[in-house]
Parts: sequence; structure tokens; C-alpha cells
Amino acid sequence: MSDIRTILLVMAMHDEAKSIIESIGLKLQKKHNSKLPTETFSGKYNDKQIWLQLNGKCPRFGVDNIGTDASVLNVYTGIENHNPDLILNAGTAGGFARANAKVGDIYLSYPYVYHHDRRINIPGFTEYGIGKYTCYPCLDITKKLGVKAGVVSTGNSLDHTPLDLEIIEQYNGEVKEMEAAAIAWVANIFGIPFLAIKAITDIVDGSETTEDEFLKNLNYASKVLGEKTIELIEVL
Amino acid sequence: MSDIRTILLVMAMHDEAKSIIESIGLKLQKKHNSKLPTETFSGKYNDKQIWLQLNGKCPRFGVDNIGTDASVLNVYTGIENHNPDLILNAGTAGGFARANAKVGDIYLSYPYVYHHDRRINIPGFTEYGIGKYTCYPCLDITKKLGVKAGVVSTGNSLDHTPLDLEIIEQYNGEVKEMEAAAIAWVANIFGIPFLAIKAITDIVDGSETTEDEFLKNLNYASKVLGEKTIELIEVL
Repeated sequence: MSDIRTILLVMAMHDEAKSIIESIGLKLQKKHNSKLPTETFSGKYNDKQIWLQLNGKCPRFGVDNIGTDASVLNVYTGIENHNPDLILNAGTAGGFARANAKVGDIYLSYPYVYHHDRRINIPGFTEYGIGKYTCYPCLDITKKLGVKAGVVSTGNSLDHTPLDLEIIEQYNGEVKEMEAAAIAWVANIFGIPFLAIKAITDIVDGSETTEDEFLKNLNYASKVLGEKTIELIEVL
Repeated sequence: MSDIRTILLVMAMHDEAKSIIESIGLKLQKKHNSKLPTETFSGKYNDKQIWLQLNGKCPRFGVDNIGTDASVLNVYTGIENHNPDLILNAGTAGGFARANAKVGDIYLSYPYVYHHDRRINIPGFTEYGIGKYTCYPCLDITKKLGVKAGVVSTGNSLDHTPLDLEIIEQYNGEVKEMEAAAIAWVANIFGIPFLAIKAITDIVDGSETTEDEFLKNLNYASKVLGEKTIELIEVL
């Protein structure tokens, strides 16, 4: 039996999480702190305790709190309250035509997650900014699940500048999203293994704008994400 | 007497905080959680309880944890443990020649702090990304202290792209730094007033690179920052 008994599943958007919550039958929990936006769902799946935490809604603009700041608050409170053996970050992402990505593809983060929008050109700070966190070993799992393995790169913008793309290419990034490296940073502080699972909604180096492709493909990608996240939990 | 009895002073770098810690005689506190990087110093100053929290060091690269992710962890644990009446973010920053900024100038954040590196071109998310948090009213204080008032803009890079500058100009940003808006976001969640005080180390639209100017002027700007932060606490 696996040593992983308790999984903290950190997610940004409710639409990305809906099918997982319904399929496993996770139940919404009472808040530890009523002011925190984080929403917690929990339940048992097979022999594992699952805590799924959403970043929660922004009360000012009615949207999900996406990006790194909200993810830090989410994962830290999740660690404090639930003491997980593994932190899993599931979400949607951009893929790259240069890496043959297609909408609906699933990636596990391997071997690293990086930041591409923290440029700090002073020795030591440069490496801190880039992050480069090692992920939970998952190559055997990608084969079992029939999914891809790739470097995940995090930034706080949905779009990209030419410099963002250059930085992502420098470390062979195959998945561009907005949360993983920040969550990995907190996981690393607490010595908890980290893994990201990402479903491709849009092709970053393709011809459509990210916003249009993202909105068009969010439901489809979230459905595949839900199925593969559950399969992943089964084999962990 | 002021309603502000307890101040949480959130800072990123030890070098920025050193003169404040020494001048007020703040004492290093035992950690609530030994794994957290955050370092807490505290003491009384006049009638006020001061909790100064540093983001702490990155154990992998030996540098201070700068930027928004580390600041979220810092301010959240500070709020949890110390229940402040006001959150003050003191630090160094870039100024702009177009706004007549000079190295050593001190700004209080007014009226807003924004993010300039969270571009999310979907309605609702756009506004969430930009942030635009209202700061503690400080125009009278800037006059008393002989310091400037200006819009503060936050991003996770020390340098800037042309697009960063364009965004900062759009909302008349006069101060560019790496923490304020993330701290204001958490302060806003908990309904706690927020104010930033920033000392200029470099001129963003000047001829020198930010890294060189920043390193050259860090000690001088931090000294002025310390003096004005203490004067600010005296009048709050």
C-alpha cells in the first residue's frame, strides 16, 4: 500500500474542479476562518483522504481568485489544517505546438516547475526567482495513465510577451499556467512532495488568442482533467 | 489618541529593515512554526505595539524571499498571529524621472496600489488581476513628514518590459516595486487598512540598469526609509 494517505488537491477555478467534486462525491466543509476565500471539499476515495481546496471567489469582481498569490494562501492554509502527504495541483493550461500539444492533452509536471515572470538579475535572486522545484517522480505513472510528462512554467498573466516565451523555451517548458510553481514553493518549505496535473485548453504558440481558446475549451479540458486526476489518485 | 494600537510592518529584505529594528529596539521572536521562513521582531514604540515581519531567507539560494508569493505568506501569518489595526509595507522601490523622482525620495502609497504583471484579458479577471486597492488616507501625513504621495505598482520582476511600463503609465504609477499589491490584497480580505512607504533606490526610466542602481543605493535608501517609517509610526 502507498505511503500517501492524505492528498491536498489545490485548484484555482470552480469550473475546473466541478467534475472531480461530483465524481468522488466530495463534500463542502465549514470554513476554519470565515474571512478566508478558500473553499474546502473533502471525502474518502479508496483508501485515501482527499482535501480539495479552491482559491475561492474574489468578492469585488465575482471571479475565481487565480494566480500565484491566491494559490499560496490556499496551499498554506491547506497544509496547516490537513497535514497532507502529497500536494497535487490540478488545473488547465496552455500547451505548445512545438511540443506537439493538442487541446485536451494531459501533462504531469516533470521533472521541474519554474516561474517565467520573476526576472531578478542579481546573483542568488535570479535562481530564487526562477524557482525550479523538483516534482514527485511520475514517469511510470504517465505511462500507466497514457498522459504526457513535461516541464510546467508559471506566470501571473494569461497572455504572454515575447520575453515570457523566450524564458519558457530556455528551460524547455511544455506547459504554461498560473499557479504550479507558487504551490511548489510552499510545498518545498514544508518538505511535502508536489505534483501538478494540467489539461491543455489552448496552444500558446498557435494562431488563436489564449482568451478565446481558453473559454471555448475550458469545459472539455476540465472534464478530461477530472477523469485523469481521479485515475492519478487511484495509482498514487 | 489614535485608534491604531497594533501595527504589522511587513518587509521583504533584512537590509531594508535593519535600521528600523535597531532604532526602535525591536526583538527577534520565537517562530510560531519552525518551518516558516518568516522572521518576526517586536516591541513597543510610544503607545503602539509593533510587529515587524520579514519574508525571511530562501534556504536554497541564501537570499531574502522577495516578491508577492512570499509577502502573502508573511502578511497572512502576521494577521493570524498579531491581529493588527493597520498593515504597513515598508521597502525600497523604483521611481520615475517623468514624475521627478530622485534616489532617496520617500513615497506613501496614494490613492491606490496596482499589479502591473497580471494581464488576464477576460472580463472580471482583468480587474481582479490589476487589483487597484485603496490605501489608508495619508495626504495630511505626507505633508507633515515632507514626503511624496503616489500610486504604487507591483510586479515580480526587478526589471521591466516595455509593456510593464505602458501598464504602469496607464494608471499613473509613480513607484514600481515587488510586494505592495499582494499585501494589500490580503489586508483587504481581512478588512484591515493598508499603507505602503517606499524609498527610491533607482530611476526606472533613467539610463542606468535597475540592478546596478539598486545595489549602489540600497543602503542609503534603507537608512532614509528607516527614519521616515519611524516618523510615520509617530504620527499614525
